[in-house]
Amino acid sequence: MNAPRLRARKLDIRNGHVDLSHGAGGRAMAQLIGEIFAENFANDLLAQGNDQAVFSVPPGRLAMTTDGYVVSPLFFPGGDIGSLAVHGTVNDLAMAGARPLHLSASFILEEGFPLADLQTIAQSMGAAAREAGVKIVTGDTKVVERGKADGVFISTAGIGVVPDGLDLSGDKARPGDVILVSGTIGDHGVAIMSSRENLAFETQILSDSAALNGLVADMVAACGPHLKLLRDPTRGGIAATLNEIAHQSKIGLRIEEDALPVKAEVAAACEFLGLDPLNVANEGKLLAFVAPEAAQDLLRVMRAHPLGKESAIIGACVEDPHHFVQMRTAFGGGRIVDWLSGEQLPRIC
Amino acid sequence: MNAPRLRARKLDIRNGHVDLSHGAGGRAMAQLIGEIFAENFANDLLAQGNDQAVFSVPPGRLAMTTDGYVVSPLFFPGGDIGSLAVHGTVNDLAMAGARPLHLSASFILEEGFPLADLQTIAQSMGAAAREAGVKIVTGDTKVVERGKADGVFISTAGIGVVPDGLDLSGDKARPGDVILVSGTIGDHGVAIMSSRENLAFETQILSDSAALNGLVADMVAACGPHLKLLRDPTRGGIAATLNEIAHQSKIGLRIEEDALPVKAEVAAACEFLGLDPLNVANEGKLLAFVAPEAAQDLLRVMRAHPLGKESAIIGACVEDPHHFVQMRTAFGGGRIVDWLSGEQLPRIC
Repeated sequence: MNAPRLRARKLDIRNGHVDLSHGAGGRAMAQLIGEIFAENFANDLLAQGNDQAVFSVPPGRLAMTTDGYVVSPLFFPGGDIGSLAVHGTVNDLAMAGARPLHLSASFILEEGFPLADLQTIAQSMGAAAREAGVKIVTGDTKVVERGKADGVFISTAGIGVVPDGLDLSGDKARPGDVILVSGTIGDHGVAIMSSRENLAFETQILSDSAALNGLVADMVAACGPHLKLLRDPTRGGIAATLNEIAHQSKIGLRIEEDALPVKAEVAAACEFLGLDPLNVANEGKLLAFVAPEAAQDLLRVMRAHPLGKESAIIGACVEDPHHFVQMRTAFGGGRIVDWLSGEQLPRIC
Repeated sequence: MNAPRLRARKLDIRNGHVDLSHGAGGRAMAQLIGEIFAENFANDLLAQGNDQAVFSVPPGRLAMTTDGYVVSPLFFPGGDIGSLAVHGTVNDLAMAGARPLHLSASFILEEGFPLADLQTIAQSMGAAAREAGVKIVTGDTKVVERGKADGVFISTAGIGVVPDGLDLSGDKARPGDVILVSGTIGDHGVAIMSSRENLAFETQILSDSAALNGLVADMVAACGPHLKLLRDPTRGGIAATLNEIAHQSKIGLRIEEDALPVKAEVAAACEFLGLDPLNVANEGKLLAFVAPEAAQDLLRVMRAHPLGKESAIIGACVEDPHHFVQMRTAFGGGRIVDWLSGEQLPRIC
């Protein structure tokens, strides 16, 4: 008797579509996982082929994080949902000062989604993971009926190792600490909005989506003991992130509008779209809070890294029982930088 | 000046609904996370309030896993998507023999989803986690527009510690090894199908959704060195799982239909629905492969645990270059137990 499973045709990636059988735990699912995910994520741990990966970790504390990705459109200038799902989770680990090790990936696919697009996304995830030095070691695939999802949603989780002696946390900033940003703000959000609204600006605005673990490793090596906290200003932009930190650390923050790096084309697009760059998401930037005596050193180290060339000191922490974030504007006035309560940019990540 | 954020009203959990602002990274999201997730998952690591949790782990190898949950309906006899999302991921860790430690949870919510249902799901997740002895240490929430998802999807990831000397894997079964199942098969799938089709059988059939890490700990303590592999037969039922293992271990499997524990009402429902219990999902059962000399001991230990009372020896591994799973039927005949290729029961988990 011949084993019929040995004669299975390869997936028709060019013309095929996801169907419910690809989430059913049977042969079709095994084939999808084998030909698309295992192929593009190739590593020894994923190849164990079990429902979990088992591995040794270096001694030290671990960081663990997760994010769901529902960005629309799935493909945008400067990236796609696949690279974003790797960068975002790597960055959440890096913000603890951790060296990212391994990721998991959970896919929720809509029936009818083109296999060619899924292949592109998986390739992009694999490339982003290799570039960031992490492995996608375990995963899961579910399929829901047409109209019950929107193409593909991805949830990645990650673990990393935190170096001994480093204890970064949102509650660690103190009055006097200096605030730095690693580059221009608002690029990701504006790239998504332009692509969603089909806007053509003179220059194409690219998402800044990138893995920041290399930059963070340099920062930790140079200024580790002086670093108080790192955070990547994603959804809600630097306005939301600064407010979160002011609350967690129970301090006020003062920033300088003039010091904020914003690309001219992003500023123009924000004006056109009625957005404030402070509220717009970034996916390859970080805010660093550092003891004042190390601020210049940190700035130098950050600017020496390809992803931190446009780093800038943007403000400092102060005593403030109200935990306000205030900005001195370019015109010399002042204003409160508040969180937005509602939704400015849905499905930005 | 008063801080307006201090005057925010509490969420109207009874009558409120998820809206896009709950995924926007601003205050509304912080409130949803605080009042629903942090409240129900309460633990010291989640309370760190960062985008990642940092913790020490005991020495040893780690297991890591993830699963997405898209079960429909969200609430079913014997559980809901929340308890399922904890049990499923705990079980994937336990199948490596790992002691589960921490979970992450990524929520994708549809605009308009009732907060009361979200609260019930979060309560159920919190209770399931406490019962299984794990903490939900980090999470993420995204909201998509009405019609772009189906209520709520959850992806959980988990890590656990694998005891030294234990090396369970799908490729470890050898001819002569004995196959056990920890109880009746098909309960979860039939519970979902009955509830979806609104079928009333004489007895209500409950999902078997449960965390198996306690049962596994007893099995490892008693028979660790003799255990070859464990796997929970979820999507695709024991037919898919047995076929997977036959392939991974490059052996054949022979099982006895008479030995398979199936509840009478599940058998009846399967007949009515045109399903084979072998293909129906379980969420609180495991298959164990063990060296023959330890099979009786293992059976005794399994039956002594509340979740293994109806454990049974169902077959054994044989040499077979075709890697077939064959079943001797109750009538004395034989048949190949094949994987289903297509989708029998969509969105069962």
